[in-house]
Amino acid sequence: MFKFETLFRSDRSRARLGRVHTAHGVIETPAFIFCGTKANVKGITVDQLEAAGTQIILSNTYHLMLQPGSETIKSAGGLHKFTGWNKPMFTDSGGFQVFSLGYGGVASEIKGSGQRGKKRTLLKITDDGAIFRSYVDGQLITLTPERSMQVQMDLGADIIVAFDECTPYHTNKFYTATAMEKNQCWGKRCLNILKEYGNGSQALLGVIHGGVYEDLRYESAMAANNEAYDGFAIGGSLGKTRREMWEIVNMTSSWLDRSRYVHLLGIGGIEDIFHGVQCGIDTFDCVAPTRMARHGAAIVKRKELRGDNGRINLNNTAFRGDMDPVSSDCDCYTCKNFTRAYIHHLLKAKEILAGTLLSIHNIRTMNQLMEDIRNSLAADNIAAAIAEWCGE
Amino acid sequence: MFKFETLFRSDRSRARLGRVHTAHGVIETPAFIFCGTKANVKGITVDQLEAAGTQIILSNTYHLMLQPGSETIKSAGGLHKFTGWNKPMFTDSGGFQVFSLGYGGVASEIKGSGQRGKKRTLLKITDDGAIFRSYVDGQLITLTPERSMQVQMDLGADIIVAFDECTPYHTNKFYTATAMEKNQCWGKRCLNILKEYGNGSQALLGVIHGGVYEDLRYESAMAANNEAYDGFAIGGSLGKTRREMWEIVNMTSSWLDRSRYVHLLGIGGIEDIFHGVQCGIDTFDCVAPTRMARHGAAIVKRKELRGDNGRINLNNTAFRGDMDPVSSDCDCYTCKNFTRAYIHHLLKAKEILAGTLLSIHNIRTMNQLMEDIRNSLAADNIAAAIAEWCGE
Repeated sequence: MFKFETLFRSDRSRARLGRVHTAHGVIETPAFIFCGTKANVKGITVDQLEAAGTQIILSNTYHLMLQPGSETIKSAGGLHKFTGWNKPMFTDSGGFQVFSLGYGGVASEIKGSGQRGKKRTLLKITDDGAIFRSYVDGQLITLTPERSMQVQMDLGADIIVAFDECTPYHTNKFYTATAMEKNQCWGKRCLNILKEYGNGSQALLGVIHGGVYEDLRYESAMAANNEAYDGFAIGGSLGKTRREMWEIVNMTSSWLDRSRYVHLLGIGGIEDIFHGVQCGIDTFDCVAPTRMARHGAAIVKRKELRGDNGRINLNNTAFRGDMDPVSSDCDCYTCKNFTRAYIHHLLKAKEILAGTLLSIHNIRTMNQLMEDIRNSLAADNIAAAIAEWCGE
Repeated sequence: MFKFETLFRSDRSRARLGRVHTAHGVIETPAFIFCGTKANVKGITVDQLEAAGTQIILSNTYHLMLQPGSETIKSAGGLHKFTGWNKPMFTDSGGFQVFSLGYGGVASEIKGSGQRGKKRTLLKITDDGAIFRSYVDGQLITLTPERSMQVQMDLGADIIVAFDECTPYHTNKFYTATAMEKNQCWGKRCLNILKEYGNGSQALLGVIHGGVYEDLRYESAMAANNEAYDGFAIGGSLGKTRREMWEIVNMTSSWLDRSRYVHLLGIGGIEDIFHGVQCGIDTFDCVAPTRMARHGAAIVKRKELRGDNGRINLNNTAFRGDMDPVSSDCDCYTCKNFTRAYIHHLLKAKEILAGTLLSIHNIRTMNQLMEDIRNSLAADNIAAAIAEWCGE
C-alpha cells in the first residue's frame, strides 16, 4: 500500500521532489507534518486544517495510549475515524516522550539545554523496554517495542515509527552507543511484529540514532539500510546548536539508502527546513507553528519581517490600529477576513480565537512554504525560494 | 432602515412570528442572540457561526470601550468589519456590566444570589452617569447616556440599547423607583443623541425597569411606550426564582406597545424561551449555550436527556466509548463528524477544541430550537414544540 517515489532529483544538492502513497492518499514531498498531539491540532477543526492545505498530521502514541487509550481509538475505527481526519497520518513510537518526559525535561534535555526540574516519570529502562508512571493517573506503564507496535497498529496511522530509546544530549558516547545498539534490536522486533500482525497498510520508519557522534551515526544509518524499513526517521540528540544539528542531519542523511523516504523528527524552523531539504529530507514535523500561534506569533515571509526572526508578534502594541491582514501575501482564511488589529485585540482580551486564527495562518504559511519549495525544486532553483523566505 | 413587522399572531397567547429588518439583513423572530462579548464568540469563527444558522450576535459595550476602545473599532469601519460578521448585531448599553460588576458580583447580584466578594469597581452613581475603574488598566471611566450612545454609534451595531442603571435584587422599592425614573430620563437623553448624531441605521431599545414591583414595572412600560424607541428590552432584576421571573416577564410584556419589537435581556433557558415567546418576546440572549459548551455540556432535545435538565455532560465517563454523535437529531458540523467518545476524550485531555465543537453544537441547537418554535407558531401549535424540547 505504502510507496515512496522520487519525481525529481536536484543536481545541486540531495534535494528531491517525491510522492508518498498511503492508504489515505498521497503526500507531495518535501512536506510539513503538523502536530496533533492528543488526536487534534489544538483549537483547529479538521476542516480548517484541510482548507489550509494540510497534507498530513501527527499524533503522539505516548499521549494517546494514556488518554483515551488505544483500545478506545481502535474501537472507534482508528485515528482517522476518531478524529475525522481522512488524509495521511503519522504516529511516533512513544519513545521520545517516555524518555524525554521521563528524564524530567521534555525536549530541553534532548536538545542539551538541561534539566527543568520537572518530576521524573521514567522509572526503569531495561533491554525489554521502559517502565514509567502515567502522567494522567499515576499508573505504572511498561512500554516495549511490541507494545508500541500494538498501540500504533490500534491507532492505524499510515506512517509509524519503531520504538526507540531517545538519549539526552548529556549522555556519554558509551551510553549513546549502547542505546543505539539496543534501538537496532528494538527496531528488528518492531519489524517482526508489524510483519506478523500488521494489515499491510502501515509503513514503518527505523530511527537513526548515534547522538552527536559521527561514527555512531554512520553505524546506525548503515544498520537501518540493511533492514526492511519503509523509510527512516532521523532522531536522537542533534546537538546543542543549529550548526551542529545541520551537520548531523547532513552527514546522517548522506549515508541513508536514497530510494527510501526520510523524515527529520521534531525540526521545523524555516531555515532548518531549507537546509534539511537540501540534505535529502522529505518530511519535517514540529509543534512550533501552532504553539507560536497560540502565543501570538505569526510566521511571515522575509519582506514582512521587522527583525523578528521569521515571525511577527501580534501582541505588540504596534498592531493595535493596524488594519492590514497578518500577511498581505497570504490566502488563508485569517488573512482574507481579519486585520492585525483584530488579532491584537483578541490576544489582549485573552480570547482563544486568537490562537485559532493564528494557527490557521501559520499552518497555511508552512504549507505555502513547502509548496514554494516543491515549485522551486521543480524549477531547480531553490535559491529563489530561500531568498523569498529567509533572506540571504 | 430598521423595521419590525409581525407576520402572525397566535390566538392562544401573545406569541408572534416577526421579521426584524436591519441594515445588515433580516432576523426571523422569535430568535436567539448569541453572546460575542469581546467582539467574538469564544473559540468560534464567524464562518462557523453562520454555518450553525446564526442570525444575530451581541457584543458588550462595556468590554469593548475598555479594550480595544470604540475608536479602534470605529476606525476599522465598525464592529461588522472588525469582526467579519456581516449579519445583524446587537450591543447592550454597558449599564448592566458597570453596575453589576461594580457592585462586586456580576449577574449574581442582579439575580439576588448575593455578593461574591469580588472587588467593587463602581465608584459613584450620579444623575449624570456612573464613574468606575477600568478592569483592564485601572483608569477612571465615566459612563453617561451620551458616552454610551457615542460608543454604540462608534461600534455601529444594528440594534442598540439605552443606557440604564441596572439595580440589584436587594435594593428596596424606593431605590428601585428612583433608579427607574432616572433611567427614563437617561433613555430620553439617548434618544436625543441618536436623533441628533446617529446615521439613521441603528434601532434604539428602551429598557423596562421596576425590578420585582408590579406598579413600577407598569409605570416603566407605560413611560417607554410614550417614547420613540424602536423597541423595548426587559431588564433589571427579574426576581429570585424562575416563577417570579416568568411572572414579571409576563406582566411587563403585556403592557408594552405590541407594534414594537421586544427583547428579553440575559435569559436563555429552553423553558424560559417557550414561556417568553408566549408572552410576546421576540428575541432572547444568554451566555449559557456557549459557556456550557466550554464546560462540556451539550444542549439536546428531551428524548436524548438522561435526567440532566436540558443538557448532557460529555465529561461523564459514560461517554468514554460512546460512538454516537452528540445528538442523533442534529445536523451541525460536530454531530455530522464526531462522536461523543471523541468529545469526551478532548475534554479529558483539556483540549480547547472540545469547547469549539460543543459551542458549534449548542449554537446550532439553539438556532434549531428557534426554528422549531417559529414553525410551530406558523402551525399555531407551540405545544408540539414544547413537548419535543421540554417534556410536559
